[in-house]
Amino acid sequence: MLPADIRDLDANDPLATYRDHFIVPDDLIYLDGNSLGALPRTTPRAVQEIVEDEWGRDLIAGWNSHGWYEASDRLALLLAPVIGAEASEIAVCDSISVNLFKLIAGALSLRPERRVILADRSNFPTDLYIAQGIARLLGVELRLHDSVEAMANAIDHNTALIMASHVDFKTGLIHDMAGITARAHELGALALWDLAHSAGALPVTLNAAQADMAVGCTYKYLNGGPGAPAFLFVAQRHHRLVQQPISGWFGHESPFAFETEFRPTSGIRRFLAGTPPMLAMRALQCGLEIAAEAPLDAIRNKSIALSSLFLELFEARLAGHGFTLASPRDPAIRGSQISFAHEQGYAIMQALIAHGVVGDFRAPDIMRFGFTPLYLRFADITEAVERLVRIMDEGIWREPRFHQRATVT
Amino acid sequence: MLPADIRDLDANDPLATYRDHFIVPDDLIYLDGNSLGALPRTTPRAVQEIVEDEWGRDLIAGWNSHGWYEASDRLALLLAPVIGAEASEIAVCDSISVNLFKLIAGALSLRPERRVILADRSNFPTDLYIAQGIARLLGVELRLHDSVEAMANAIDHNTALIMASHVDFKTGLIHDMAGITARAHELGALALWDLAHSAGALPVTLNAAQADMAVGCTYKYLNGGPGAPAFLFVAQRHHRLVQQPISGWFGHESPFAFETEFRPTSGIRRFLAGTPPMLAMRALQCGLEIAAEAPLDAIRNKSIALSSLFLELFEARLAGHGFTLASPRDPAIRGSQISFAHEQGYAIMQALIAHGVVGDFRAPDIMRFGFTPLYLRFADITEAVERLVRIMDEGIWREPRFHQRATVT
Repeated sequence: MLPADIRDLDANDPLATYRDHFIVPDDLIYLDGNSLGALPRTTPRAVQEIVEDEWGRDLIAGWNSHGWYEASDRLALLLAPVIGAEASEIAVCDSISVNLFKLIAGALSLRPERRVILADRSNFPTDLYIAQGIARLLGVELRLHDSVEAMANAIDHNTALIMASHVDFKTGLIHDMAGITARAHELGALALWDLAHSAGALPVTLNAAQADMAVGCTYKYLNGGPGAPAFLFVAQRHHRLVQQPISGWFGHESPFAFETEFRPTSGIRRFLAGTPPMLAMRALQCGLEIAAEAPLDAIRNKSIALSSLFLELFEARLAGHGFTLASPRDPAIRGSQISFAHEQGYAIMQALIAHGVVGDFRAPDIMRFGFTPLYLRFADITEAVERLVRIMDEGIWREPRFHQRATVT
Repeated sequence: MLPADIRDLDANDPLATYRDHFIVPDDLIYLDGNSLGALPRTTPRAVQEIVEDEWGRDLIAGWNSHGWYEASDRLALLLAPVIGAEASEIAVCDSISVNLFKLIAGALSLRPERRVILADRSNFPTDLYIAQGIARLLGVELRLHDSVEAMANAIDHNTALIMASHVDFKTGLIHDMAGITARAHELGALALWDLAHSAGALPVTLNAAQADMAVGCTYKYLNGGPGAPAFLFVAQRHHRLVQQPISGWFGHESPFAFETEFRPTSGIRRFLAGTPPMLAMRALQCGLEIAAEAPLDAIRNKSIALSSLFLELFEARLAGHGFTLASPRDPAIRGSQISFAHEQGYAIMQALIAHGVVGDFRAPDIMRFGFTPLYLRFADITEAVERLVRIMDEGIWREPRFHQRATVT
């Protein structure tokens, strides 16, 4: 593609102005918004407000006068259109790990006669770890399959729950949420989806897909900040019967009555547990305000255009360097990332980062490049590929400093 | 006491300079630091730094370059002397509710042959709610007693765990952590303490008391901010065998190896679950830095002096108004608060708040006044009592506006 064509793509990008909603370092080509999203321009002031004007000035009164107590409800309203659910089905709280624990246990409470959970080995590790913890605790069986398809084929009348990521964190493969959920329902099982790599990156339609439960991450495509509180979804039809065991006071019908007995509140707030971290909740609100406003179809279109351009240039310019595409070639089943496997992937990625292009590495050999349509430009894509070409052609990645492992990779 | 005597108390207060470490509104007498502590002066800048300089500028690299990954370890080092434990026994994460879930399940994993948990009805409600949730989930029995003493007397060879608050949230009564723990150990049970109302308010000596486990709150006397992450403690001797079921990736021996099987890390980090909310963790660090430096004996001495002065003035000036002392008269067994029961306690407290003295109300009839030695002055105590005298003498509390209930009281 000629430079003029790239300039045209950026000039005609309907999302181009969204880049101004973020503070993106000028010297960085950031292809890792699927790990940690960029800082919204409104966040610093919003955080300063809650710290100095609310906490600092009004202290305990902030819970009433600044609506801290309703933070989850307020964030759920912003998130609802992004994931195709009602706000009354969404709680924003805790981490994905803790929320998965609540939901898996909740699903088992809805299918008490069934003792099998199905998952697949390509799911994100913490999803598997939490399922293993519950399985051991409750004496239920967790069966792991090699793929989501194999898992879907194994559903039977003993299956209480299937769980899977909507978009595979390594490859970006989009799974058929509606089809697999329907298969689960045919056999009386429930379906729990992890939206960590889809919420905010592509249209998610939980209710249209008849999903029973979901969890998701807000610090990736939703730009909530490092470790921002996660969210969970439970379809309305399950609210009456579902039980979750981390029954903390924020899930009580009347938390400030200080009763001795737990009485779950009737709605989704029964999935709240303890007091939420308000500073992190407020920062998250800034990210969600952008997400609630941005047109998801345009995001999806640009995501496909960015990743397709990257793939095209990558394969044209980097053939023969030992990279193997680890993502679907068909953009219809590809999330907002492109991954390549390379046996020296760790060192190559470190070299690329040192040259101002940030992607990430996922063991054992996956180089991941994420595309965040709200603040990436098409020109960033061409420049990223050119820098990688130089690193490979000149063997820069062989320098010893790029082979040292960091704590968090 | 004469005004000159009060001025002497403030002039001779060895902690007087600590007030400058906080931003306390000039027009407020804040006797509710036991609900939400004041804003440390360093917090706004520290939060701004992590938002703008770390997240905003370095994005995903912050996990390595700014030590986000080690945040729990760093905060544990600050907290260790405050609660009389080793940093290697402390994790800072999640909420009290979620941490209680981990620890109660962990205690049951250490006493698998025992099926009874003992607690008392005066414990904080979320502690009881979480125990109820676990008991129902695992089919163990939760027996509630009317007092901590009755609970201690009921320990037997079926008891897996006793759980209690170190300081009663309503009355401020300090329970005998060492004595009750020893009683539990004699009969082979474990003891779990909630330090929400003692950590930072008085010297806590978990290891000297041989406590097995503890949880605590950081947004009260430790000034971490609204909903700041909580902490948990597990004595070193239990680390090898204890299992906790919310086995998320941050508790994995090698979280970034992305293994399929959960392998708990050997130390206290196995009690971490998901990704921590870094903005809230950084704010908390500012509160803990003050706590780690402040002399706990001086805090305790001033706490007793403040609460004793309040009690003396209150009883001298407010006799005949229907208040009943709900806290121990003996300061040796009294935490850093004084509570009075009054059948119109809610309205009286609202009137007092409207007149610039902030305490809080705990259903059904408890008016709570907390004393935070780091930023309260003796002159605040006398002024608080004088304002309450006026509210009672003039019947101001009878105004209808003080009888409307807020969401969070």
